[in-house]
Amino acid sequence: MGTKNGVGILKKERVSSGLKGNCIVAQSGGPTAVINESLGGVIQEAQRHEEIKEIYGARNGILGLLKEELIDLRKEKSSTIESLRTSPGAALGSCRYRLKSWSESRKDLEKIIEICRRYNLRYFFYIGGNDSMDTAYKVDEAAKRMNYQMEVIGIPKTVDNDLVFTDHCPGFGSAAKYLAISVMEAGRHLESLYDSERIIILETLGRNTGWLAGSCALAKRSEEDAPHLIYFPEIPFSLDKFIKDVKEIYHKIDRVFIVVSEGLRDEKGNYVCARRNRVSTDAFGHPELEGVSHYLKERIESRLELKTRTIKPDICQQSAIHFASKVDMEEAYLVGREAVKSALKGKSGYMITIRREKGRVYKRRTSTAKLSLAANLEKRVPRRWINRKGNFVTREFIEYVRPLIQGEVDIAVQKGLPYYPRLEKRRWNTFLS
Amino acid sequence: MGTKNGVGILKKERVSSGLKGNCIVAQSGGPTAVINESLGGVIQEAQRHEEIKEIYGARNGILGLLKEELIDLRKEKSSTIESLRTSPGAALGSCRYRLKSWSESRKDLEKIIEICRRYNLRYFFYIGGNDSMDTAYKVDEAAKRMNYQMEVIGIPKTVDNDLVFTDHCPGFGSAAKYLAISVMEAGRHLESLYDSERIIILETLGRNTGWLAGSCALAKRSEEDAPHLIYFPEIPFSLDKFIKDVKEIYHKIDRVFIVVSEGLRDEKGNYVCARRNRVSTDAFGHPELEGVSHYLKERIESRLELKTRTIKPDICQQSAIHFASKVDMEEAYLVGREAVKSALKGKSGYMITIRREKGRVYKRRTSTAKLSLAANLEKRVPRRWINRKGNFVTREFIEYVRPLIQGEVDIAVQKGLPYYPRLEKRRWNTFLS
Repeated sequence: MGTKNGVGILKKERVSSGLKGNCIVAQSGGPTAVINESLGGVIQEAQRHEEIKEIYGARNGILGLLKEELIDLRKEKSSTIESLRTSPGAALGSCRYRLKSWSESRKDLEKIIEICRRYNLRYFFYIGGNDSMDTAYKVDEAAKRMNYQMEVIGIPKTVDNDLVFTDHCPGFGSAAKYLAISVMEAGRHLESLYDSERIIILETLGRNTGWLAGSCALAKRSEEDAPHLIYFPEIPFSLDKFIKDVKEIYHKIDRVFIVVSEGLRDEKGNYVCARRNRVSTDAFGHPELEGVSHYLKERIESRLELKTRTIKPDICQQSAIHFASKVDMEEAYLVGREAVKSALKGKSGYMITIRREKGRVYKRRTSTAKLSLAANLEKRVPRRWINRKGNFVTREFIEYVRPLIQGEVDIAVQKGLPYYPRLEKRRWNTFLS
Repeated sequence: MGTKNGVGILKKERVSSGLKGNCIVAQSGGPTAVINESLGGVIQEAQRHEEIKEIYGARNGILGLLKEELIDLRKEKSSTIESLRTSPGAALGSCRYRLKSWSESRKDLEKIIEICRRYNLRYFFYIGGNDSMDTAYKVDEAAKRMNYQMEVIGIPKTVDNDLVFTDHCPGFGSAAKYLAISVMEAGRHLESLYDSERIIILETLGRNTGWLAGSCALAKRSEEDAPHLIYFPEIPFSLDKFIKDVKEIYHKIDRVFIVVSEGLRDEKGNYVCARRNRVSTDAFGHPELEGVSHYLKERIESRLELKTRTIKPDICQQSAIHFASKVDMEEAYLVGREAVKSALKGKSGYMITIRREKGRVYKRRTSTAKLSLAANLEKRVPRRWINRKGNFVTREFIEYVRPLIQGEVDIAVQKGLPYYPRLEKRRWNTFLS
């Protein structure tokens, strides 16, 4: 196996680990539109291998393992698994529970490994973002420390697209596509209303990175198309410059469609936020942000006297599967399958990654990166992919993201609305009785 | 022609007015996803009748007529008109310009009729909501007062669904469908996240009526499905009762998905709003509202200590054509065509309405109502369609709205995103030169 910059490439297939045992899969962090594709990929691939006996799901991520809330996924109908793949939310439930270092979280970690041992869990698949990769890493370390052989593989998932060592993250393409269509449609609305609101601010997710905000640029096919301005957490935000930018566009075309990332920061690195004194933190210690669009609306209205509306799709950009990207769905499924294949090759402590091959036509292949390196790092938008003024993307950004939003998904519709199945509640832990 | 409760029913076809002249069509007020279907209906029906010579469009509603910003719609390719029908925004542009009474707006009204005379406009079609119906009514009155023969027909359009004398309004069904799917998807997201946000508040449009908020109930197919609580402008809002409702659901199912209409009012009739002192008004004199979801989020967080997120789709619910209702699109087109047919029968001063026929299977037919009666009135959600507690709809509401969201629309997709054409700018007023 060649390793370069922490990225492990499966050059030669390793001999199967030969381990016979059960596998467990769990979902963690904020769901994406395609997180259940990865789950489906794990389950359906696991079903193909005789080394894997039982296929368990943990309820609400690592918490389900700690609480022994498990489901026997082999008992689900294959049609249920198939239709879950195109359902929003995390079918197994998710969590934001943080495992700390061995010394701090020893009790949790020992319990986890003890439970794994009890259920003969030999393959551990964790679907999530940076923090979840950290959880997977800690489980892998704990297993090694406790001399328990278990292959731990992380499966990347995040709309934020901020995982390192992977070209992009499953979940991002669908969120980008949903935001781009929202901007297209709302942009036409803004364009129509001559004597009313002339400014729209759409606030995207993205605490530290502007991947989602930048993707809204896909909506723009001609100069008059929305969006006109995009602001990134990567670029220190200046209110004066912002007001100047808005004024300039307004004088040119009589309207301005602005996209802002929730995580804008000023020159001093402080979050630009209406209620600075009320910033609180979530379980992972991240500040909770809100109100940047509202704050900027007030500034525009008071300084430019231009009526401004705000749009905040919030979790809709994480859950909107009805206009998901087919490429994204395929890749989410693929990384789930690859996780199983890697584990069966005896790999442990790795995250599946996607590598983009060079060339004009989009081609990808999967690879792996060490969890120890991938966990807790963030990939930011490169400076050269943001224009000089810091208020729009460059062509490179568009070329990067466009292949990821291609293709539409057919969802099952019943009486005018989609059919989104669930795993049946009554099945949780039924196999224990 | 029989008239009952101000609703004129075309029982016998009247002899054609015989007027030969040009027609004009304009769009007014906030666009809906299907407003261009009505425009397409007018244009394509007008093309079928030899009494109608030129087909003009006014830019930005009545303002375009006042400024003589017109477009010759016969010069557009039929394929452009066809594809405009499934494009968001108002293709001709819209406005919120208010015509007041004859004595107050005499200058405007005289100018309008003078321009109509100059362009030999004999058929006047105005697509809009309550305020726009008032504009059409005033134009009709002014024409009569000035002895200018012109048939004026209003074409209903509003996501708010608050026009009287019509069973429902084109634009509403698509907004309802978009909101329902957003609630379904975001509801699954909420359900997945076990130890993080447990409360979601989604804020819908609806200044005085809860049609859109209530429609979110379509997302609910089982008890655990979102939404769990809905609040309407029709029901006086009590914060204490609200907090009690939220607490009750939370204790039962560990999460709460709440839908609120932007126009909630307290027992005294004052808007429930974060910034009461900053309520301003738009051109039609309506207060601009914002922040009800944000306000309630803060109340929940401080009184119940439960982390709460807000979703504000705002104008996306007016512009999202990518998941529009086919029934709504067909009806929007139908009322456009019917407007032309009515005008050609010599009717003037009427709005096209939709009547629902009795029976289990949804059937509709068009009819007309006097603009003088329809303008400026608002249809509110009947009390009996809201539950006793005032926090959800009844079965009757669901039975009313379900037929209106049926059927999906195919939109043209180019490179992963829709293709939404525009009328070409250079064509405006080209026929004058």
